[in-house]
Formats: sequence, structure tokens, C-alpha cells
Amino acid sequence: MDRAAAEKLATELYRALASGDRDGLDRLLHPGFAGHATEGLPLGLGGDYQGPDAMRRQFWGRIARSVVARAEPAEFALLDDGRLFVRGRYTGTARTGAALDAEFVHVLSFADGQVSGLVQLTDSGRWSEALAEPGRDLETVDFTVTDGVGVLRLNRPDVRNAIDQTVADELYEVALRCAADQSLRALLISGSGSTFTVGGDVSVFGGVGADLPAALRRMTTPYHDALRILSELDAPIVTAVHGAVAGGGLGLLYVADLAFAAENTKFATGFAALGLSGDGGNSWFLPRLVGPRRAAQLYFEQRVLDAADAAEWGLVSHVVAGDALEHEAWAAARRLADGPTRAYGEIRRLLRDSWSATLSQQLVAETDAIARAAATADAHGAVAAFLEKKTPTFEGR
Amino acid sequence: MDRAAAEKLATELYRALASGDRDGLDRLLHPGFAGHATEGLPLGLGGDYQGPDAMRRQFWGRIARSVVARAEPAEFALLDDGRLFVRGRYTGTARTGAALDAEFVHVLSFADGQVSGLVQLTDSGRWSEALAEPGRDLETVDFTVTDGVGVLRLNRPDVRNAIDQTVADELYEVALRCAADQSLRALLISGSGSTFTVGGDVSVFGGVGADLPAALRRMTTPYHDALRILSELDAPIVTAVHGAVAGGGLGLLYVADLAFAAENTKFATGFAALGLSGDGGNSWFLPRLVGPRRAAQLYFEQRVLDAADAAEWGLVSHVVAGDALEHEAWAAARRLADGPTRAYGEIRRLLRDSWSATLSQQLVAETDAIARAAATADAHGAVAAFLEKKTPTFEGR
Amino acid sequence: MDRAAAEKLATELYRALASGDRDGLDRLLHPGFAGHATEGLPLGLGGDYQGPDAMRRQFWGRIARSVVARAEPAEFALLDDGRLFVRGRYTGTARTGAALDAEFVHVLSFADGQVSGLVQLTDSGRWSEALAEPGRDLETVDFTVTDGVGVLRLNRPDVRNAIDQTVADELYEVALRCAADQSLRALLISGSGSTFTVGGDVSVFGGVGADLPAALRRMTTPYHDALRILSELDAPIVTAVHGAVAGGGLGLLYVADLAFAAENTKFATGFAALGLSGDGGNSWFLPRLVGPRRAAQLYFEQRVLDAADAAEWGLVSHVVAGDALEHEAWAAARRLADGPTRAYGEIRRLLRDSWSATLSQQLVAETDAIARAAATADAHGAVAAFLEKKTPTFEGR
Repeated sequence: MDRAAAEKLATELYRALASGDRDGLDRLLHPGFAGHATEGLPLGLGGDYQGPDAMRRQFWGRIARSVVARAEPAEFALLDDGRLFVRGRYTGTARTGAALDAEFVHVLSFADGQVSGLVQLTDSGRWSEALAEPGRDLETVDFTVTDGVGVLRLNRPDVRNAIDQTVADELYEVALRCAADQSLRALLISGSGSTFTVGGDVSVFGGVGADLPAALRRMTTPYHDALRILSELDAPIVTAVHGAVAGGGLGLLYVADLAFAAENTKFATGFAALGLSGDGGNSWFLPRLVGPRRAAQLYFEQRVLDAADAAEWGLVSHVVAGDALEHEAWAAARRLADGPTRAYGEIRRLLRDSWSATLSQQLVAETDAIARAAATADAHGAVAAFLEKKTPTFEGR
Repeated sequence: MDRAAAEKLATELYRALASGDRDGLDRLLHPGFAGHATEGLPLGLGGDYQGPDAMRRQFWGRIARSVVARAEPAEFALLDDGRLFVRGRYTGTARTGAALDAEFVHVLSFADGQVSGLVQLTDSGRWSEALAEPGRDLETVDFTVTDGVGVLRLNRPDVRNAIDQTVADELYEVALRCAADQSLRALLISGSGSTFTVGGDVSVFGGVGADLPAALRRMTTPYHDALRILSELDAPIVTAVHGAVAGGGLGLLYVADLAFAAENTKFATGFAALGLSGDGGNSWFLPRLVGPRRAAQLYFEQRVLDAADAAEWGLVSHVVAGDALEHEAWAAARRLADGPTRAYGEIRRLLRDSWSATLSQQLVAETDAIARAAATADAHGAVAAFLEKKTPTFEGR
Repeated sequence: MDRAAAEKLATELYRALASGDRDGLDRLLHPGFAGHATEGLPLGLGGDYQGPDAMRRQFWGRIARSVVARAEPAEFALLDDGRLFVRGRYTGTARTGAALDAEFVHVLSFADGQVSGLVQLTDSGRWSEALAEPGRDLETVDFTVTDGVGVLRLNRPDVRNAIDQTVADELYEVALRCAADQSLRALLISGSGSTFTVGGDVSVFGGVGADLPAALRRMTTPYHDALRILSELDAPIVTAVHGAVAGGGLGLLYVADLAFAAENTKFATGFAALGLSGDGGNSWFLPRLVGPRRAAQLYFEQRVLDAADAAEWGLVSHVVAGDALEHEAWAAARRLADGPTRAYGEIRRLLRDSWSATLSQQLVAETDAIARAAATADAHGAVAAFLEKKTPTFEGR
């Protein structure tokens, strides 16, 4: 591609991004598009994106929810390998009201007359400043961090913690706070009132009429982002459920490393009764947790499990008496918070990524992970303690 | 690539396709080949194909089994991005005797002197007409559809429903009919006589001598296509087994969402006793259904399970008395047929694709699926019924 | 790319390889790099490598551990599709002391100014001669092959078979011998003394101080290669454990098709107590064997299992009395060694690759595998025996 053609494509790209022109992006982006965003960006935005869809939804889409910004190119140069170098600035206003003004360099690749790659380097510190939430008040969930233990509590007891748009948005907000909090060493998730959660708030679904597809898309997007971010924390998660856990709300159970259930808890997907296919990661976690046969029973027979079933099937780790739930779950979170947080983060990453890896790839990933864990103060202290037959203490670094 | 070179490669491609020149195709297709076929093609032929193998076997190979046709290019034009635009016609005769004559456009991409991509747009309605089967008689399986419930019954009781070439071909035929039948809302699979199926018909294997590899390839190809197509139906599947289910025949159990077994049923792979590695999807389903340790026992110890084992291991959903089998399985199929067929289709797709998806990808797929399900009349009716505390009725749309 | 540019890149590539310049390789290799090595190379080196990492670690890295060699290009020619043809010789000295001198042809592809592909054809017989180990003495493991049954016994009973660098290196050596031994038809893995293995030798970890990351990388690399090679054998594996199996040592249990445990055996990961993330394939096998919920309990609660738990969870196939362990495991290995070794190899490959395949891909793989198995003398004899109602005998070919 020559300079003029490359510059023309790039200009169209920046125009499509600025105007939110989805069809334009579809035309401009190559099916094999690969994006790389600056590692240090906030909201977990840094890293690699495979395919135009991932880039559009998980990168540009998530930015758009937090900031109204545009990328303004100021300088183009064609590299001798045919890629285009672009310098410019991001300018805009964050949802927090703060201004964003950050330099960027983009290196664009091209294939088949489309944009096939974008490597981004930007002043990510400026992004973090602009997007920092000044402790926005939460209405439907409580969140506190004490001595390294975060506690997230669903708090709409009057509607049995049904998940509506506000709950979904606030869970996303709390997930971001968890990801940004370097002091967090364990997270406890629970619910107030009689019921952990009945899942999506059907009364809302009824009110939107023909807009149900858009309403569900709007609600599941931040909720799913919350689940994804929670699953990517270094800090282990304990979830404590009681009463009922249903539908998409099961996702808050799935992201936990240790799941405690009160004896009285009922578990159900409930989607088919509403003519819906489900959300909350059920279709990813259920086949892995309970196997395909039982996953099908939960979806197609709408089977309801009690706590003992749920433990036997592998949905929860421990069943405890209702009045012991809070204490037991909190004690487990406390123990995890006193553990080797960086090694826990490596373990969480390995276990999560395991499903997409071949044995050969996973063995390489284990070697890389153990080498990183071995460089921590916690590992050095623990190896020394082991050899001296002492109990190790961990500081999470 | 210049126009002449592109046209030469394209001409060689059409020639290799017309003559079934497999080696020629191997030379012409790039290892990274990506094909896209018109969505509306019959036999589930539409969609994307990754790699030359997938294109050759799953697209061109399956076409070749149903129609003798050739693609005749009439016009070439080089696009300015180096791709080649081809217009022409498919002409030929289908297995049904009907003539095929359909326009096409192909857009070919090239890399490293090979064909790296083919985007096909053709008049798929013409294909559907030509390939429509006018109710060909079935010899070894029965198939009927009544009030939305399809019933597929293996019917070679004298040889305990052993699967030979005819059974494999007819299962493929029935799978295609199921996929084409918009009225189908559930499928019940069962077998007549003493035994659901003993698997492949070993008496046939013995008769072919040194041709055993080719004979097994010929037989497993339509049988595997049948299993694949059944696994991709929107309509849920119930399989009812009794007596024995062995070898590749287990595949008809695996594609079911709900699997019923009579108390007397025995389950076994049996492959190793024949010095064979197995078919029927056993190696895909068993590790996921029963775990690697138990899958190995079924293959390497040739362990035989009874129905109670099979339920405990997760091979079947329900064990029932032999004389209740037909009724129970039929009632389950009836209940599923009265459900939200489109949402069930989304759930089946999500659960099947889950294994190849990262959590992040699957969460996006769930959002897309629930938005599609939410647009159906069934979802609207069910949400309204829920809020009015009534029982929903579903019409499968 | 023109001839001069291609030749320049190639020259830089050979220089970077000769000097072990990892950063140089990073710059030179395209992210989409695809390598193909001559099928007949020893040490399992032949075949395809996807991505620069796989090529560097699994191909060049493993060569570097066995031979000090350099590739000396002698002739370049630009092919008309832009690829570069290179002829030359590999020369060097193997770890065994033998000289290596082997011709090669490389065909290099280029993209975005980097090397995107390398197809290698070399005189692999010369490599096999140079790398053949003349039965190097083993210090920490015993290995014998008798009548087709290999027996690998961990033999550091004074330190409960703790795995240090020597054990890791020798397990790699034995795995290579197994892969090279066409007479091997089953492998039995066990340990001498009171304990199968306590896992990594922590006393070594303590001695290396700040070098712990490098020490663990050095140790897990050959150990993981050993596990990978064992998992890729045609010959089935039986592992017999007693006393304890801990940490990375669990990998020797995971690669087995049949796992026997003495009643007294304890199982534990133990990593978190050392502030480490773990190795030995635990993060690949545990979620598949015991499910995500129980895998998390083993990692995050450091739960210790007894043999009955391990059987119920799917870690082992059989629990036997301690004094029966050796006999039972040996008898199982003997039975497997009398089986259809080539079909077993196909089954092992199918089950291992199943996790990365879609159903559609796996069905194609099953057809290919059964066609290969059906071409063996073992399959022909077994089918004939079946029809004559006789017991088949297998010769492993």
C-alpha cells in the first residue's frame, strides 16, 4: 500500500471512530484484525484484542462507556514495511467530568485494502487520572475494603436482589475499583435480605416491550464486563449464597474460587421459562462445573437444585448452616487475604486460561508463571520458612 | 499478484475442482485458506470454513455427495487490492435427479502464490430446489414428524440395529430432513427390537478385507455428518436407549440434550477389541461427559457400564423401568416440543460452542444470543405471563 | 520483498540463531510465524510450530539442550512468490560427543519486514546418529524394557523421591528413550521407598536464593518436556503411586491412562504454602479431571486427599491394598502391552487433542484415525477373530 492509500484508510478509520460509525468500522477492519493497547491503561483496557469484534466491543465500546473522547491524528508517516505511523492526541471528557488530553502513537497495518492491525501507545497515566472515580455513591450494592478484604454485598433486599440496569452498572463499577486497588487481597461477595439474588429483574423486562433485545444487551454488557474483570483479579474470591441463586445471578457464584452456600439455598437457571437463552456466564461455567449432561438438565428440564445437590454437582465448595454462613465465608476470605496474593493471581490465570490451552502450551505457561511467582518476597520467605519448619507469613508481594 | 497470474491460479482451481484432483487442490490452497459460503445454502453448507481441509471435506466433499456439478467461470476482474473477482454458473445434476443451474460470484484472495481465500455468493434458492429430496424411502430407519415431534427409530432389529453403510447414509438423510423442517420442535431417537444399537456392523468390516480403511472412511463420513447436523438443530433431542449402546452408536446418545436409559442397558466402547480407535464422537464427548480418567477406563479397560453407572457417570440423564422407557422419553420430547424452540436453539449453540470459547468470548456470545431470543414472540409472551403469574405457552417462534 | 532485503533478513536470522540472540530473534520473527521441521528428526522435533515462541522454545531451545550446532547457509535464491530458498549445512557437536554434519534446505517466507515462515528439510538420519545416546547411566531413576513393558522407577528413596535438576533431566532422557523405542508397548511408572514423590526438592529451592526463578525455569523445562513426550507416546502408561504424590510430581500420575493408588496414598498440590503457582501440568489436568470447584480447593484450601477421595474425584482409576499395588499395576501394564498399540496411540492422541477441537474437527480426526488403525495387521486379525468368535492376539503393528 502506498502512502496516500494508507493515509486515506487511516483518516476514514479515525472518522468512523469519532462518529461511532459501526458500519464504517465493519468495512474498514480486516477480519484478521489484531489490536494492541497500552498495558497501563485503566479499566483493564490494556493488552491484545483479536478480531474486529473484540476491538470494537471490548476496547472502543468500553472506552465509550466511560469517556467521550476522540483520537485526533496530527502526523502520518509510512514505515518501510508498509505500516503507517500516526501521532496525535486523545481529547475528551470522562463520565466523571474530568478532562482527558493524552498523546498517542498508533502503528497501523494493512491487508487486502483494510486495516489489519493497530498498535497503540498512549500516555496511560493521563487516562487513569481522567477516569478515576471519586468514590461515586453506590445505591444497590455495598462495597468496602478492610485490611485487604473487600466485601461486595448486593443490597436490594426488597426485590430479593434482582439485577436491574443500576445493579449491573454498579457491579461493573465495583469490579473496576477491585481491579485498581493494589491493597485488595481477597474479595467476599454476598447478598443482604432473604435471598442472594433471583437473577435479572423481570419486572423491568416487562416494561420495555419491543425494546427487550436492546434492554438485555444494555444490561448484560456491564454485568458481563464485571464478571470478566472479577475473574481476572489477582485476589481470590469467596462467594456466600443463601435463599436462592438464579439465572444470570449465578455468575457471581461462578467467579468465586471458594463458594459457600447456606443449607436452605436453591439454585436454578430459569431462562427457558422466560423464552430466553441466558446470561451470566452460565453456558461457559456449567458444562465445566457439572458436565454437559447435568448442564442440560438445568437448562432443558429447569431442574432446581438444593444446596446438597449443588455441592455434589460441583457448583459450590461448602454447605454450612444458615447462621454460620457469614462467619465461615468471612473466615475463608480472611485466610485467603493472608496468602501469597501474587501466586494466587498466577494460579487464577492458569486455571482460567487452561481451557483454551493445549497441554504443551499450558506447560510453558506454568513455567513462566512459577518463575514470576518465585521472584516474589512471599515465595522467598515461604521457602525459607519451610526449610526452618516455621509457618510462613505472606504480605501479598 | 498481477491479473495474469491470478487468473491462471483461478483457472487451475476450477479445473482441479471439476476433476476432483485432490493433489492439485493441495498445491493450490494456502495453509491459511479461509472460505465463506452463501448463508442460505441447503444441507447446512453455508458459513465459514477455516483451512483447506475443512473447505475440501466439509464443503466441496459434502456437495459432491449430493450433486454432480461444476463451477464454470465466465468473467474475471482483478480488484485493486489484488483479489480476483469471478462471475460464473454452477451447472450439474443432483442425486435427486433434478438439474442445478445457479449463478455465482467468487472473490478469491491470494498469498504466497496460492489461493488463500474464497468468498462465495450464489443463488442458494436454486440449490435448495435442486437438492430437495422428495421423501426418498428409508430402509433401515423410520422417521416421522407429528405435531412438531420428530421420531427417528433405528430399525434393523434382526442385527440389533448394527450400523452399516445404509444406516449411516439414512441417518445423514434424516438429519438433513430435520435441519430443513421448520416445524420440528423436538426429536426423539430410539431403536426397535432388543437393543438400541451394537454400533458398527462388524460383519461388514470382515467382508472388505484390505479395503477396511476406505470402508470405514466411507461409513463414518455420512454418520459423522449426521451427528454434526443433529447437534446443530434448534430443536432439542431426547434419546431413549435400551439393551445395549456400543461403539460409534453412542454418538446418538451424545447428541441428545436429555438421555433416557432402560434399567437393563449396557454401555461399552468396544473399539480396542477390534484393534480400532473409534468413531461416533466418543473421543470428543467422553472426556467432557465422564472426565479423562473414566474415559480412559472405557477405552483401555473396555469397561462395560450398566445403566446405574451410566447415570452416575453422566452418560445418561435418567434411568427408567424398561416398560416405561418409551412413554417417559416421549413425554419429555413432547414437553420440549412445547417449549421456546428458538431460545432452545440458542442454548444448544452456546453449550456446544462453549468448549472452544474463552470466558470473555462466551460472555459476548451470551449477550448476542439473549438479544436474539428476546426478539421472539415466545419471549415476549413468556415475560408477560410471568408478570401476570400465568403459565406461558410457546409457539416456537 | 526483493532479493537483497530477503537475504539480509535471512543472514540476520542465522546470525541470531548462532549467537543465541533472543532479542534479535524477537525482532526478526513475525507474530504469525509458522515453522515446519523435517518429520524424521529425533527427540520428537519434527512437525509444525505455530508462533515465534513455540519455534524458539520447543524447537530451537530443545535442539540447543542436545547439541551445539549452527546452521551455515551457503546459497540463497529468491522464489518468484517472494520466498527465499536457502541451502546449507548444520555442523556441530552433540551432548553425546558425536559430530553433527547434515545438509539442509530452508524456505523462508516474509511478512511486514519480518520472517513469517520457515520450512525445513534436513538429512534427519544424520541427526539421529549424532544424538543417539549410548545408554548414559541414570542416577536417580531406573529404566528397563522387558517384553515390550517399560518400567520407570523414581529412585531417590532417601529424600522421598523429591524431584531436583538431575531427576528432571533424567526423566526427560527416559521419555526420549521411550519415544525412540519401537518395541515399547506399555510403560509402568512407579517409585521406590516409602513415597512415590513429594514433588520438587524444596531443599534445592532454598539454596539458590535470588536465583529461584531461573532455577525453577531450568528444572521445569526438561520435566515438562518429559511429561509432554510421555503424553504423546503410542504406548499406554500405567502409574502406580503410594505414600504421597505432591506438587509437580502429580504430573507423572496425570500422563497415565490407568492410575493405581495404594490405600495409604495422600495427594496434595502444596504450591501455595511455598508462595508458588505450581507446575507439572496441574493447571491443565486438574480442571479436566476433578472440575473447577475441586481444583480450586486443591490450590486455594490446600486440601489433602486420601486414596478414596482421589478415586471418587477422578484422580486415580483404582485403589488397591498396598501390598497388591506392584502386582496389580504390573498386570495392567502387561495387558495393555498385549493390546493393539497403534490403535492405542490413535486413542491417546484423540483424547489428548479433543480439548482443543470443535466437535466437527474431532469427528474428522476420528475418521482419519480409524482409517489409519484399520490399516494395521492388528485390526485385520481382530476383526477376523471377532467374526470367528475367537480371542484376538495383537502384535502392536
